[in-house]
Amino acid sequence: MSKPLRFKHKKKRYALPEPGTTPGFVYIDVNSLKPKINLYSFSADTFDVVELNSLRDIAKRTKDTSAFYWVEIKGLNSAELFNVFSEELKIHKLVLEDITRTYHRPKFEEYEGYNFAVSRMLRLGEDGGLENQQVSFIQTKNVLYTFQETYDDCLDAVRNRLREGKGNIRIGGTGYLMYAIMDMIVDAYFSVLSEWSEDMDLIEDRLLARPDKSVMYDMQLVKRNLIALRRVIWPERDKMNDILRTDSDLISDQTKMFIKDAYDHCVQLMDMVESMKEIASSNIDMYLSIISNRMNEIMKVLTIISSIFIPLTFIAGIYGMNFAKQDPVTGKIMPGNMPELYVANGYEYTLLVMAFIALVQIIFFWRKGWFK
Amino acid sequence: MSKPLRFKHKKKRYALPEPGTTPGFVYIDVNSLKPKINLYSFSADTFDVVELNSLRDIAKRTKDTSAFYWVEIKGLNSAELFNVFSEELKIHKLVLEDITRTYHRPKFEEYEGYNFAVSRMLRLGEDGGLENQQVSFIQTKNVLYTFQETYDDCLDAVRNRLREGKGNIRIGGTGYLMYAIMDMIVDAYFSVLSEWSEDMDLIEDRLLARPDKSVMYDMQLVKRNLIALRRVIWPERDKMNDILRTDSDLISDQTKMFIKDAYDHCVQLMDMVESMKEIASSNIDMYLSIISNRMNEIMKVLTIISSIFIPLTFIAGIYGMNFAKQDPVTGKIMPGNMPELYVANGYEYTLLVMAFIALVQIIFFWRKGWFK
Amino acid sequence: MSKPLRFKHKKKRYALPEPGTTPGFVYIDVNSLKPKINLYSFSADTFDVVELNSLRDIAKRTKDTSAFYWVEIKGLNSAELFNVFSEELKIHKLVLEDITRTYHRPKFEEYEGYNFAVSRMLRLGEDGGLENQQVSFIQTKNVLYTFQETYDDCLDAVRNRLREGKGNIRIGGTGYLMYAIMDMIVDAYFSVLSEWSEDMDLIEDRLLARPDKSVMYDMQLVKRNLIALRRVIWPERDKMNDILRTDSDLISDQTKMFIKDAYDHCVQLMDMVESMKEIASSNIDMYLSIISNRMNEIMKVLTIISSIFIPLTFIAGIYGMNFAKQDPVTGKIMPGNMPELYVANGYEYTLLVMAFIALVQIIFFWRKGWFK
Amino acid sequence: MSKPLRFKHKKKRYALPEPGTTPGFVYIDVNSLKPKINLYSFSADTFDVVELNSLRDIAKRTKDTSAFYWVEIKGLNSAELFNVFSEELKIHKLVLEDITRTYHRPKFEEYEGYNFAVSRMLRLGEDGGLENQQVSFIQTKNVLYTFQETYDDCLDAVRNRLREGKGNIRIGGTGYLMYAIMDMIVDAYFSVLSEWSEDMDLIEDRLLARPDKSVMYDMQLVKRNLIALRRVIWPERDKMNDILRTDSDLISDQTKMFIKDAYDHCVQLMDMVESMKEIASSNIDMYLSIISNRMNEIMKVLTIISSIFIPLTFIAGIYGMNFAKQDPVTGKIMPGNMPELYVANGYEYTLLVMAFIALVQIIFFWRKGWFK
Amino acid sequence: MSKPLRFKHKKKRYALPEPGTTPGFVYIDVNSLKPKINLYSFSADTFDVVELNSLRDIAKRTKDTSAFYWVEIKGLNSAELFNVFSEELKIHKLVLEDITRTYHRPKFEEYEGYNFAVSRMLRLGEDGGLENQQVSFIQTKNVLYTFQETYDDCLDAVRNRLREGKGNIRIGGTGYLMYAIMDMIVDAYFSVLSEWSEDMDLIEDRLLARPDKSVMYDMQLVKRNLIALRRVIWPERDKMNDILRTDSDLISDQTKMFIKDAYDHCVQLMDMVESMKEIASSNIDMYLSIISNRMNEIMKVLTIISSIFIPLTFIAGIYGMNFAKQDPVTGKIMPGNMPELYVANGYEYTLLVMAFIALVQIIFFWRKGWFK
Repeated sequence: MSKPLRFKHKKKRYALPEPGTTPGFVYIDVNSLKPKINLYSFSADTFDVVELNSLRDIAKRTKDTSAFYWVEIKGLNSAELFNVFSEELKIHKLVLEDITRTYHRPKFEEYEGYNFAVSRMLRLGEDGGLENQQVSFIQTKNVLYTFQETYDDCLDAVRNRLREGKGNIRIGGTGYLMYAIMDMIVDAYFSVLSEWSEDMDLIEDRLLARPDKSVMYDMQLVKRNLIALRRVIWPERDKMNDILRTDSDLISDQTKMFIKDAYDHCVQLMDMVESMKEIASSNIDMYLSIISNRMNEIMKVLTIISSIFIPLTFIAGIYGMNFAKQDPVTGKIMPGNMPELYVANGYEYTLLVMAFIALVQIIFFWRKGWFK
Repeated sequence: MSKPLRFKHKKKRYALPEPGTTPGFVYIDVNSLKPKINLYSFSADTFDVVELNSLRDIAKRTKDTSAFYWVEIKGLNSAELFNVFSEELKIHKLVLEDITRTYHRPKFEEYEGYNFAVSRMLRLGEDGGLENQQVSFIQTKNVLYTFQETYDDCLDAVRNRLREGKGNIRIGGTGYLMYAIMDMIVDAYFSVLSEWSEDMDLIEDRLLARPDKSVMYDMQLVKRNLIALRRVIWPERDKMNDILRTDSDLISDQTKMFIKDAYDHCVQLMDMVESMKEIASSNIDMYLSIISNRMNEIMKVLTIISSIFIPLTFIAGIYGMNFAKQDPVTGKIMPGNMPELYVANGYEYTLLVMAFIALVQIIFFWRKGWFK
Repeated sequence: MSKPLRFKHKKKRYALPEPGTTPGFVYIDVNSLKPKINLYSFSADTFDVVELNSLRDIAKRTKDTSAFYWVEIKGLNSAELFNVFSEELKIHKLVLEDITRTYHRPKFEEYEGYNFAVSRMLRLGEDGGLENQQVSFIQTKNVLYTFQETYDDCLDAVRNRLREGKGNIRIGGTGYLMYAIMDMIVDAYFSVLSEWSEDMDLIEDRLLARPDKSVMYDMQLVKRNLIALRRVIWPERDKMNDILRTDSDLISDQTKMFIKDAYDHCVQLMDMVESMKEIASSNIDMYLSIISNRMNEIMKVLTIISSIFIPLTFIAGIYGMNFAKQDPVTGKIMPGNMPELYVANGYEYTLLVMAFIALVQIIFFWRKGWFK
Repeated sequence: MSKPLRFKHKKKRYALPEPGTTPGFVYIDVNSLKPKINLYSFSADTFDVVELNSLRDIAKRTKDTSAFYWVEIKGLNSAELFNVFSEELKIHKLVLEDITRTYHRPKFEEYEGYNFAVSRMLRLGEDGGLENQQVSFIQTKNVLYTFQETYDDCLDAVRNRLREGKGNIRIGGTGYLMYAIMDMIVDAYFSVLSEWSEDMDLIEDRLLARPDKSVMYDMQLVKRNLIALRRVIWPERDKMNDILRTDSDLISDQTKMFIKDAYDHCVQLMDMVESMKEIASSNIDMYLSIISNRMNEIMKVLTIISSIFIPLTFIAGIYGMNFAKQDPVTGKIMPGNMPELYVANGYEYTLLVMAFIALVQIIFFWRKGWFK
Repeated sequence: MSKPLRFKHKKKRYALPEPGTTPGFVYIDVNSLKPKINLYSFSADTFDVVELNSLRDIAKRTKDTSAFYWVEIKGLNSAELFNVFSEELKIHKLVLEDITRTYHRPKFEEYEGYNFAVSRMLRLGEDGGLENQQVSFIQTKNVLYTFQETYDDCLDAVRNRLREGKGNIRIGGTGYLMYAIMDMIVDAYFSVLSEWSEDMDLIEDRLLARPDKSVMYDMQLVKRNLIALRRVIWPERDKMNDILRTDSDLISDQTKMFIKDAYDHCVQLMDMVESMKEIASSNIDMYLSIISNRMNEIMKVLTIISSIFIPLTFIAGIYGMNFAKQDPVTGKIMPGNMPELYVANGYEYTLLVMAFIALVQIIFFWRKGWFK
């Protein structure tokens, strides 16, 4: 972990719905990216990919039922794009709204003739902050449409497997392809978690070596990240479960066996997140106890030194007083009113008394275990 | 957030039922607002709105089954109004009691020939306090009655969409209209939450920059607001779920798809509230650890200064003592009993010893890391 | 809230079963009240109430199936009374045991020919303590028997409605009458909660104005009261639910609509109790943070004053030392060994140095923000 | 509570299974008690009890189907005993293993021809520690076998009722007898809880009167006892529920009504345990706040006294300095360099200034409320 | 517990899936152990074990349906091995992936013709750290394949029972053998827990005798270990439950009775873990209160000594001042300006006043109970 941890959580401000817009309103964020569209067509033996400028005539382009298609859309800033979905492909406008409002929890919904799903793709950014984008899926019999907010993603491995035809990916249909992408996204959670786990180890080392305020800040930051991650994983698991239990004929039983595997991964992740949260909490407790302990140590030093020297100073103060005799006749003032002062070796005796008092106190503190 | 946060939670004291009133008793709060009644009549192509003075003959006015009607009632201070519902429209008196007792949780209930629902409309007032009013719905085949406590609300957007005929609002029937209003109310929760989220960011900034008592107060205030909001959202979600699962023929399947969307929004809101609550708690922990840390710093200053100077003062006190010799013959008292005092350069040596002691202590504290 | 709050929770020591008694043993507490019995007979148009000395022949007195009867029994100290139930009315002895052991949770049970239910009636006593008595119900086709521990209760409103024939109370049968009494008891919880809510506001005011130990005590007292109330409301809600789902023909569907209303009230109460508990907890946190803050303030005062004056006192101590020259020849001791002392205006310079040191420290503390 | 509370929890070290033993292995603890066996035979009108030396021929002895039998086995240290069960009575070896491994949770299991159940009998020992032994039941049509670890128990009341023929105990069959014993065991939990409740009251009194370390220890001890008790009551309730829902013909419907009563007792107990745990937690919070408060008081005393006297001591130090004039000619050193010292009544003025400074500080602390 | 406890939790870094590998990819960790394979063949009367170099022809070797086989594979570093499973035995590649990715939660899955299960074997290593390896099971009609990561395990007892033919192990089929191994693994959890329980007792003793920082560290370490163990036991219980409810004909009803027993053990373990976690938490609370208490004691010593001696030192300082008379004529400076100094026995009176002040303070502190 070379990057510094920052306490301040970087928040993505979602474009929340302005109250009053029509339900099903397709929201185009003018600050978002213009779409790049790739059309992958593949079957057991063939593979092709072309870049499209527009989705017009997409129905015609994907009419060959002996092949499967993946229409990958990166960037959502195009009203025209969504018109195609709405008018040509008859996608429900609530689905389109959900695609454009990119703050949705993972979910899976069945519609007539197609399925709709949402995943959340997490990545650690350059600055250690968590990037969290929505990936939406529309799955028909032989076409899978995916929508993502940015051009970067963690799906290159899927594209390579598609190109090379490894495993089931070309023959499992759109259901398997959707699974493959979702599984890749879930796998990326493991990377994120693993990095945070290392961060936590480093923080723990600092906690034991030199616990200062920043340890607390960083631990809280990790805890928050875990809270954020948990908010993604729980509905992700529910989504997987919904897919497992669907009777949609777009998801084959073979694919469901793989989905069950992804479901297990989500449960695994939840376990890890919960354990890490418990460990973070226990580290915060530890930090607080370390502070208390340190306070005790500081107070012990103060108390030992004050308790020893304050009484001695008092004794010195006594013998620094100027009591004197006044000759009742002449009114002349002369020393001689404090007999101890004039005893032979009085000074040495006093020092011995002082040493004795100090010794008694040191023994007292020693027995209380304050020197440990 | 220009308005100041106040710790003291503004509570709305509900008119709780006086024990002993007959169940189903319609309670008229004499301090509440007199009703204003609007009758909207609309179909796919027509739209009209008139203000009514009374509900008498409402059945006649809404008898045209080819149109839909929305009877909007703002202000509940009229016994006569509720008589119409009870006698002319045969609404169950428990329903009317629930409308007039404005402290109900969101709920949805089916009755013979009509549905009854309750929402809670939240708004941030001028002073940053949360205004929380009850909106009740009676939905029949072609008339939707709504009841609210005040004249102000967040429903203008719905009225505009009705006037302009945007989307499904004129053709979806009373079920869709009820959904549209409920959805607007839920959307307003997002605004409230978003404002609190900004408040929390500001509080967090203060927490890191200059954590004083007011940070704790404000954080607690936000936490309480979140507790209050949660109390509204949970039953709101349950209500949406009840509507989804109802087999009342007053709610069409198309409308249920929209209700599912509103249900998702409630789940989203719950997620956000829970996360914000966790963050608020973690900030309070942080605050407490900051206070403890600061205490440590204060004590360190005290301990360092006291530990260094108290022993030195003691030494100075020693050499300020007045031990003296007394001539055994003349009884005359003369200095000379404290040999160190008369050593050549004794003073300078003493200062050196003091400096050495101070140095040893400074090194000791340095190594303990107390100067950081 | 004029009455003082006391930390010590007044506990009612229930007569717990001595291990070893036969199950179904009717326990007569000799310290409890002798029974007072009222027999209310009523129908839509008639109403009569007589006081009975004994329950003998109660079956004959209530044989008119065109009327309904309410047999109200206040005080349980009579073995003969329970013999009538056991022998004449064939009530199961476990039911009678439950009536006499007055520590039961709210519940609803069906038996052959009758229903049995338990409610807990709460009232704030004169001294602010919570009085908690058991009200038991045996409901047959046309007779409702109620049992309570004391002569005082909160049911006068029900008796008045019965006398005046308001609402459904005379025509709804024994099921509705039982509902009316249970509803009244639940309504009384609202009063209790409302009073505690005001107590909590007052405590909160004290918390912000002058937080002393008693604030903590009182807040804990409220929290405990809430814990006790929660213990009553949860099973009360479950009881209402059991009645809603019963298929006993002694509870009509109309009555169930009212029971649904009472059920909603219980849920409302649970909501309120949970929120108040959360607020109480957050106030306790607040109190602890206030104490910590105050400690910080105290320590700041000590540290500022000590840090400024202890070094200055040391300097004064230095120049109070008695180092002197000793004439090597005469052995005479004379001042002159501490050169600074004899510098012209040395005293004034010293004061200036002291003022400078103090100033530096004041600036140091100022910058640390300790004077705020 | 005359006996002293001890923090250290007395743990019973169970003979945990050594990994590797065959499942169903009957474990004979050589340190346990040799069995004492009583055979009770009873019917509505007859009752007899004999002590047996061995279980051989137990099948013959209990063959009279018109009577019921209770075979009571105290002490499990006999391999021969379990051979009888295994070979003569054909009891499953897993059941026998469960009887001999005495660390099982309460449970109820049906086997062919018999039921098996486990209860845990709790008693407060002489020293206030909790004794926790396993009671196992094998119930056949007309014989109930019970197994307990020690000779002492809390079942004498059941034996007396059996001898005297009170209630249903002789006519309810083996099911009712098993219920009667289980109910007695659950009743004993109330005694334990009631004693702890009194302990807690005493601890609370000490908490308010003189809160020292031992209060914390004792409160933690009670909390732990409650945790241990809860571990017994939850599965006990589940066991009762299992019996209620069994369709074994060895448990009659009449008996189930009594089991329902015992089930209610378990729920009651859980309620009490949870409340007591919450109260214990709130007392621990209270204790911590009392410690913090006390720290505040200690610091106030220190701060007030130090703040007042340290500056005054500094002033006294100033006028104890020995600044002097040195005659530039003779080099003679004479007082006279600190003009205030020689002002007429300078001493009195100084004292007044000191008194004034002290007064200002006292007013300052007074206004901060530190003298309360 | 002779081995030292270390705070730092030893973590096993699992080979997490690199994002992008094909699902069902058999991952061979080059750092893992080469496989050792044993083939046990047994029936009621026969037993044989041979070591195999390769799994080739395993189908032929296990074709005798009158016997059962256990193929034990220790070490997973062989791609060829998994090829046999994939090609010869037609095991699903997701199963093989799960076997090679050794970070799975306990689970049970049915496939066509075989069952797949995962257990986690826990052992305390030499250094007190927890070793956690995955044991996977593939169970067919007459062959059980087990896979483990290391050569060491806790299964010798099972092998011995198999060799000696004790109990059901040779006649219960592969289901019983799988149960026997799983049961052994669960039994080992008891050993681990029992050792931690002893550790916790030792820590508790130290907590009461000399609570220093290391107590907190060790307690947190135990708490973490418990968190880790809980993560294993919960899914283990769910696995047992899944086996209980399976209708696979590879698991007989007799075996399920044993599985029920193992299920009970898991519940028992969960109980113990939860209780120990609660006790660990309560010990941490105790530790914090002990620190606070100790702080109070330290502060009391400081406050008592400072409060007594600081005012006395001030008095001594007063009479150490050098106020003097200046002869208005000669300008000569002479003592005499501080009348108390020249009173006869003024010194003795002053000492008495000092003693009186000290006494008053001592009484004051005594009454506050600070000397206890």
